Amino acid sequence: MAKNANPVRGTRDILPEEMVIRDQLESAILKTYVAHGFQRIETPALESLDLLLDSEGGENLKMLFTILKRGEKLQLDGDSTVADLCDIGLRYDLTLPLSRFYSNNQQQLASPFKAIQIGNVYRAERPQKGRFRSFKQCDIDIIGEESWQAEVELMDTTAKALMEIGFQDFILRVNDRRILTGMIDMAGYRDDQVGTVSVILDKLDKIGEEGVLKELGAMEQGEAAAEKLLALTRTVSLDTLKDFGFLQEAVEGLTSTMAAVNQLSEGRYTLSFDPTLVRGMGYYTGMIFEISYGPYGFSIAGGGRYDGLIGKFSKQSAPAVGFSIGFERIVTILLEEKRSFLEGAQRLALLFDEGDDLVSVMKQADVLRNQGFAVSVMKARKKLGKQIGQLESAGFHRLWVYGRDQEVRVLGEAHGE
Amino acid sequence: MAKNANPVRGTRDILPEEMVIRDQLESAILKTYVAHGFQRIETPALESLDLLLDSEGGENLKMLFTILKRGEKLQLDGDSTVADLCDIGLRYDLTLPLSRFYSNNQQQLASPFKAIQIGNVYRAERPQKGRFRSFKQCDIDIIGEESWQAEVELMDTTAKALMEIGFQDFILRVNDRRILTGMIDMAGYRDDQVGTVSVILDKLDKIGEEGVLKELGAMEQGEAAAEKLLALTRTVSLDTLKDFGFLQEAVEGLTSTMAAVNQLSEGRYTLSFDPTLVRGMGYYTGMIFEISYGPYGFSIAGGGRYDGLIGKFSKQSAPAVGFSIGFERIVTILLEEKRSFLEGAQRLALLFDEGDDLVSVMKQADVLRNQGFAVSVMKARKKLGKQIGQLESAGFHRLWVYGRDQEVRVLGEAHGE
Repeated sequence: MAKNANPVRGTRDILPEEMVIRDQLESAILKTYVAHGFQRIETPALESLDLLLDSEGGENLKMLFTILKRGEKLQLDGDSTVADLCDIGLRYDLTLPLSRFYSNNQQQLASPFKAIQIGNVYRAERPQKGRFRSFKQCDIDIIGEESWQAEVELMDTTAKALMEIGFQDFILRVNDRRILTGMIDMAGYRDDQVGTVSVILDKLDKIGEEGVLKELGAMEQGEAAAEKLLALTRTVSLDTLKDFGFLQEAVEGLTSTMAAVNQLSEGRYTLSFDPTLVRGMGYYTGMIFEISYGPYGFSIAGGGRYDGLIGKFSKQSAPAVGFSIGFERIVTILLEEKRSFLEGAQRLALLFDEGDDLVSVMKQADVLRNQGFAVSVMKARKKLGKQIGQLESAGFHRLWVYGRDQEVRVLGEAHGE
Repeated sequence: MAKNANPVRGTRDILPEEMVIRDQLESAILKTYVAHGFQRIETPALESLDLLLDSEGGENLKMLFTILKRGEKLQLDGDSTVADLCDIGLRYDLTLPLSRFYSNNQQQLASPFKAIQIGNVYRAERPQKGRFRSFKQCDIDIIGEESWQAEVELMDTTAKALMEIGFQDFILRVNDRRILTGMIDMAGYRDDQVGTVSVILDKLDKIGEEGVLKELGAMEQGEAAAEKLLALTRTVSLDTLKDFGFLQEAVEGLTSTMAAVNQLSEGRYTLSFDPTLVRGMGYYTGMIFEISYGPYGFSIAGGGRYDGLIGKFSKQSAPAVGFSIGFERIVTILLEEKRSFLEGAQRLALLFDEGDDLVSVMKQADVLRNQGFAVSVMKARKKLGKQIGQLESAGFHRLWVYGRDQEVRVLGEAHGE
């Protein structure tokens, strides 16, 4: 009996037309990263469940895919918990695996270590339009460099990768977790409320100032603190902030970084200080940044400094900062705008008859391949006209009927006449 | 406290030096496949557990990683089975996912459909040297072509991919499942014993003729049948087999295929009929093939025809044949033979002092990038000599000390003197 051929709920099959774009995209980004001295590594999609559960993954920890123990290790009874039943989970991001990797292989790596990671991550999100449970991430990180020069390098490299694939006029917004915390403090909130306040402030895009005021106002400090915080985010600048001694290091770093990146950008993209930028991950400790583009209501890249994470694995902690390109979001934009930023190989169908000598046909195919075509050899059908129409729909650009044609036929030209 | 930073048992981290080789390898293979008219697709690593368990995956089904149900779907009690607890598994190969993909997307695909799949598969094997629980497979398949011309195309394309990455003088061995079954039948075994006999015959490499004779001899037909079968495998040729009417189609297909591939090989690799070739998968129905190379006791590529598998998903069945390159095995050989078949970019370290203007340094880096170097900008340390030694060990080939050097320094030259 025929079975259900759909992919698992929340995942999807990727068809050839999209794969061409994805492969071009990955290879263009990788080329830029490599030219800037980054080195690609790979870690397994499987990580120890203990590690995953103990990471500061926030909401992602509620969306873990966990793998059942096998053999004798699996002891079932009615009271078993997930941690009893499972010892492995699928990674939900590439930062935790990188921290583990660095601690595990540090003595074999350059210092500072500049890493490239491109790979799939898994989150059991509630399926909804445009969100998938398996998706590709594309990260660069610098481990072992504590100064803001690492941030400059990451921003410059990421911006160049985006320009390499045809994006311009994007907006790079920056902030620093210490500045964010400082403002929340100045508004009258306690240290233990910083997380809650940040989460609410992060909703500005979605619920607007009014919504944020309402949610903050419901906290014990009331509306006055809420209004003070929002007023601060509207009025602060790096200039006014530098007078606060406890923010000096953060402000100086951000100022130097912005000055350098502004010069390197040569006006091709916009850089701005955004005191309302929060970014969700719990592990950020310093500068944070995000890139938005055009009318799309989502960021296409984001990152920040996470100096504490490596120390969880290693006796020696190490400063670290990363920038991640939203691979799937870029693909969505490329598909929506029907952009092909690189010219793919022309696909040519070489048709032959049952009676033709297959070896001669295939040698002819090699001749055409040497001319740069991607050649698919296939049998001619009786209804050649119909077959040609199907070849066009299947994305073939060129045709050669063996033994009949003397030169390459261009498909689809008739439609243009 | 510091945590265990090892990767999950049976998996591994991949360091930058190996990743360069893996990326070059994947891109060279992909390029050859695309030039031959194949199209890349991608399916999720997650598949429905029902599908996986009902596939003819043989031993692989004992090595499934299965994923715990989430939320209300998870109902625990002492009698729960794996199928109660889990609804998803990780794929153990790329053939089952391809069959599902084809059935799910057939109306949007070219016919015949020539697929490329490159991706990781997962098997909970007992960890041992050189075997990992997560590894990359690299397959091409033709769906919708029933004639032996599809086999010729797969063999030609796979051989060219191997030659493209520097392999020559490999041996391509071919057989047909129908010929194998025919010989087992002629030796006096019943249809329902074909599987058992094949499994024993498949051990020829490992336990030799004596071992095979012993194991076959222990079956109810005794030693006579065992000796008859082994004698057959030693003496049959495609010439002698063609007299058996019931093998005619298989023999003719194999003869035509070998004649064509022999001509296309132009002597760069060897083709041979091997009546003892079994290949493990239960789903093969026609020609099967395997490539071995040099002194290595493992095959570096393998495949065959599986005309029945698509019909499990779709009302309409479709003929199908595939050839898979053993990506991990090729990597092992490249690393062991210290081969780098493609010249990677020269890695250059651009060192600067704390006091230098970072923007000028980074613009200098871009100038060097335009000359083709992969440039990593980093701070000079006080002990420059020691740092240079470390850069060499970390794989840097070139050096430029900003503000001091007037031209690119070649690293490691002193060692050659």
